[in-house]
Amino acid sequence: MIRLLDVPGGRAAEPLLVGKLLRTPLAVSPAQEIVYRGELRYDYRTLRQRIGRLASGLARLGVAEGTTVAVMDWDSHRYLEAYFAVPMMGAVLMTVNLRLSAAQIRETLDHAQAEVLLVHADFLELAMRLRGTLPRLRHIVVLEPAAGVDPAGVAGEYEALLARETADFPFPEFDENAVATTFYTTGTTGSPKAVCFSHRQLVLHTLGVLGALASPQFGQSVRHGDVYMPLTPMFHVHAWGLPYVATLLGLKQVYPGRYDADRILALRRREQVTYSHCVPTILQMLLSAPSAANTDFSGWKITVGGSAMSTALARQALDRGIDVFAAYGMSETCPFLLANRLLQRSGSGSGDDRPADDEVGNDEVATRCLTGLPLPLVDLRIVDEQMNDVPHDGRTVGELVVRAPWLTAGYVGDPAASAQLWADGYLHTRDIASIDPAGYVQIRDRAKDMIKSGGEWISSLQLEELIARHPGVAEVAVIAVQDQRWGERPLAVIVPRSGAGGPPTLDDITAHLETHVAAGTIPRYALPDRIELVDALPRTSVGKLDKKALRAQYR
Amino acid sequence: MIRLLDVPGGRAAEPLLVGKLLRTPLAVSPAQEIVYRGELRYDYRTLRQRIGRLASGLARLGVAEGTTVAVMDWDSHRYLEAYFAVPMMGAVLMTVNLRLSAAQIRETLDHAQAEVLLVHADFLELAMRLRGTLPRLRHIVVLEPAAGVDPAGVAGEYEALLARETADFPFPEFDENAVATTFYTTGTTGSPKAVCFSHRQLVLHTLGVLGALASPQFGQSVRHGDVYMPLTPMFHVHAWGLPYVATLLGLKQVYPGRYDADRILALRRREQVTYSHCVPTILQMLLSAPSAANTDFSGWKITVGGSAMSTALARQALDRGIDVFAAYGMSETCPFLLANRLLQRSGSGSGDDRPADDEVGNDEVATRCLTGLPLPLVDLRIVDEQMNDVPHDGRTVGELVVRAPWLTAGYVGDPAASAQLWADGYLHTRDIASIDPAGYVQIRDRAKDMIKSGGEWISSLQLEELIARHPGVAEVAVIAVQDQRWGERPLAVIVPRSGAGGPPTLDDITAHLETHVAAGTIPRYALPDRIELVDALPRTSVGKLDKKALRAQYR
Repeated sequence: MIRLLDVPGGRAAEPLLVGKLLRTPLAVSPAQEIVYRGELRYDYRTLRQRIGRLASGLARLGVAEGTTVAVMDWDSHRYLEAYFAVPMMGAVLMTVNLRLSAAQIRETLDHAQAEVLLVHADFLELAMRLRGTLPRLRHIVVLEPAAGVDPAGVAGEYEALLARETADFPFPEFDENAVATTFYTTGTTGSPKAVCFSHRQLVLHTLGVLGALASPQFGQSVRHGDVYMPLTPMFHVHAWGLPYVATLLGLKQVYPGRYDADRILALRRREQVTYSHCVPTILQMLLSAPSAANTDFSGWKITVGGSAMSTALARQALDRGIDVFAAYGMSETCPFLLANRLLQRSGSGSGDDRPADDEVGNDEVATRCLTGLPLPLVDLRIVDEQMNDVPHDGRTVGELVVRAPWLTAGYVGDPAASAQLWADGYLHTRDIASIDPAGYVQIRDRAKDMIKSGGEWISSLQLEELIARHPGVAEVAVIAVQDQRWGERPLAVIVPRSGAGGPPTLDDITAHLETHVAAGTIPRYALPDRIELVDALPRTSVGKLDKKALRAQYR
Repeated sequence: MIRLLDVPGGRAAEPLLVGKLLRTPLAVSPAQEIVYRGELRYDYRTLRQRIGRLASGLARLGVAEGTTVAVMDWDSHRYLEAYFAVPMMGAVLMTVNLRLSAAQIRETLDHAQAEVLLVHADFLELAMRLRGTLPRLRHIVVLEPAAGVDPAGVAGEYEALLARETADFPFPEFDENAVATTFYTTGTTGSPKAVCFSHRQLVLHTLGVLGALASPQFGQSVRHGDVYMPLTPMFHVHAWGLPYVATLLGLKQVYPGRYDADRILALRRREQVTYSHCVPTILQMLLSAPSAANTDFSGWKITVGGSAMSTALARQALDRGIDVFAAYGMSETCPFLLANRLLQRSGSGSGDDRPADDEVGNDEVATRCLTGLPLPLVDLRIVDEQMNDVPHDGRTVGELVVRAPWLTAGYVGDPAASAQLWADGYLHTRDIASIDPAGYVQIRDRAKDMIKSGGEWISSLQLEELIARHPGVAEVAVIAVQDQRWGERPLAVIVPRSGAGGPPTLDDITAHLETHVAAGTIPRYALPDRIELVDALPRTSVGKLDKKALRAQYR
């Protein structure tokens, strides 16, 4: 029989609580800076005091253990304060997705039973409009009120609230399985689903990400001495959990407010930021910003996730001196599961000590675009429909399924979807992937984005990557359309590149792809027999390609 | 009321089990090497298979969940296999302290209720002698039998046992609070006390140590690409937990067998070891070995703990190119609590990128000898007798008390000692320390080694450090002796350095210390008024100075 730890007179296991992440930075880095937009800066000692004041203020508004406190804000020091103060009280932090429709925001606030809302002045009008339909919502606190905002009907302004409260809030100790955060997954199908994470899960995720990102040999790292700036919204899966990691390490942190490419580049230069993370769209936006031409990007390490990073984008970033590398996760996984790192130096040197003007080889670019290697404690399998492991040959594809101590338990209030998520004891990502002998995982496609033609699978992601290399193509999305004979066939929806000698024709694209058929990269049956030209591709609230909308449009 | 994570249809929190540390290395580093004495090498894939075979073999000997399996071995791949296989079965690994007396070894095997003993041939005779007095001990398995060892009366030989078993042992999943390991603290007072650690504690300690040792900015690190060799015995607090960290990172690991300085240096060179950890005595032994003069020590990072590292020893190691740094912990704390790292480069460059022939400044040597900075999640306080925090001024001393998720729950079967260990909700280290404004902790002395003279404290450790700088002194221990007038007075017990112009006199020592009194480093009342010359100082089973024996001898 298992012998459980039980020592009479001794002490039970210490619970893993989010507040304990503050222990080391307060002891070692109390004078380290936290910066908001370059307009406001304070130290970790002040952060800790403001966390106490915020908790005192929320308690005065009736927030107790189990209360949901929602936040609608751009990336800010205030959001960081809420990341700690709300869970540390035993309350639940709801991070509201700012890119949802008003109706969806109302629906999620209602579902989460939010009682207090901290809302940036930019969203105050919306909040005031919704509050009448949200009977549980008792208080609204305004963040950063612009001149002329009428404070009538709100509980007050954030800074005024903090100013009159004590920093000595008596944070309690409680069960580590207490819910700390909740938010709603968007994705391209169905209505938003609620996931939540416990203190234990957030602490373990923080330690797992720290272990993965601190330990690489040739760059792609986050360590003491780095300066951190998130470029993934803080409402999106805790900004991938990195604010907790940066705080635990006691790093200088820079919060950019609402994203604006030129302002981000200026802020990055002024505050000497060395580490950020973002989706490919944001990286592309930074590299194409008006001020990008005159910007020195070297010394910036950027994790790219959310969707696949193309080799073209990686090459562009590397050429500018960015140590760019892929990572992977999802809302349900807290989110980190995989992070890329170089296992060896490329011929011309790589990583931290690469000379700025050194050429990066194609092999290394391809390696950096692989989705990554599993984090510590992540049990990762790629399986067929009978849950058998596929060969680790870098080619055979299957569904990526995972276990790890920080994965969501399921969808709140949706037992059927929860059971489906966790079928056979593994969390099903619904992403189709391969794994190579070195352990690198490559996400090939969303399960639903694979195209089944004549009984064979075609990867829309791979087709997109290849079509995007055509000089006449600015952006492309490949979707499945119904076909009488083959079941499904690929359709390429293309945004032409302006000034590239006219939009590409189907023949142009076919001729371009023929070389890849000849090289054996794709099978002949993967060649699209139809293209559509559009001005822009539809995107979801978090900037991902909205294939659901495309599929509705082209049948 | 706290809202607990409970999602119908979903999945409960995944338990933290030691076996899960193998997930990432098996996925990413299956071909990485594990080396024993340079005589045997195999890969992680084989490690995993041998762990399965060992579990199958132990199960055949009747080992089940809750059974205690004891090991008596030098540092070896077999010990690493037992570190995983025994806990992964739900059984308890007892690491027997080889330096205890035969009577103490018998006593601890009996107390731990060991049923199976894996014993190196070097200790087989002892084991066979003891077994008649240990009715619970059912089986003895011999490790590395020398020719001529009679296998009669033993369950067999380790390799033969593994050879006939399957690698597919069905390792169960169970409560993370299950006991994984147990061993006995030695120290200089009382009889050995049993501590034990759960799976949860070992996993969290592994993540905490990884976070601390992977993230430093200027060297003092353990990361991918390092080659690991323990130089702290594997029976001593899981070799400080580093075999688990090295395995999680998928590092090449080198196990040196019984310690022999010249063989260790040859092995280190041949296997290109980059990271080790040891007590000061072992480091001194390596630097003084016959082959040391012809050895290139550069590229070796060494954590020094167990007792204080003198600036003289650190200087000697740094001059040879070793990136040497202090750390701190104890048997009760799994053991890591503090690890040193440089917060800034010294004038002449420091850490990983220091040129081999560059001089290390005195400030940096002093910094490296500070005991260190707290690990992630460690709550560390230095308190007076009323549990009030002392000022963080680098001077005021108090007792170091700690909390962290991996500290022992108490002493098995000793509720009074357990309650005393955990008085006021903190683990009492009984070490006297100061903390400076940068967060560096410096252990000044064991509480019982402080000398109270005329109502004032004198640090025996500080006196030892200063007296050791006298050219005529090879080794020194300072203890308190009773004094009618002052309560206690310091006595210096000195091993003279041969060939240094005769042994030092009390006048020599006093004159030597006067400069430090003049400089304000020590008060005048700290000057010893008696010295004793001896040939050697008494040491405990783990090589620490045995002040208990000295105090018994000199009253």
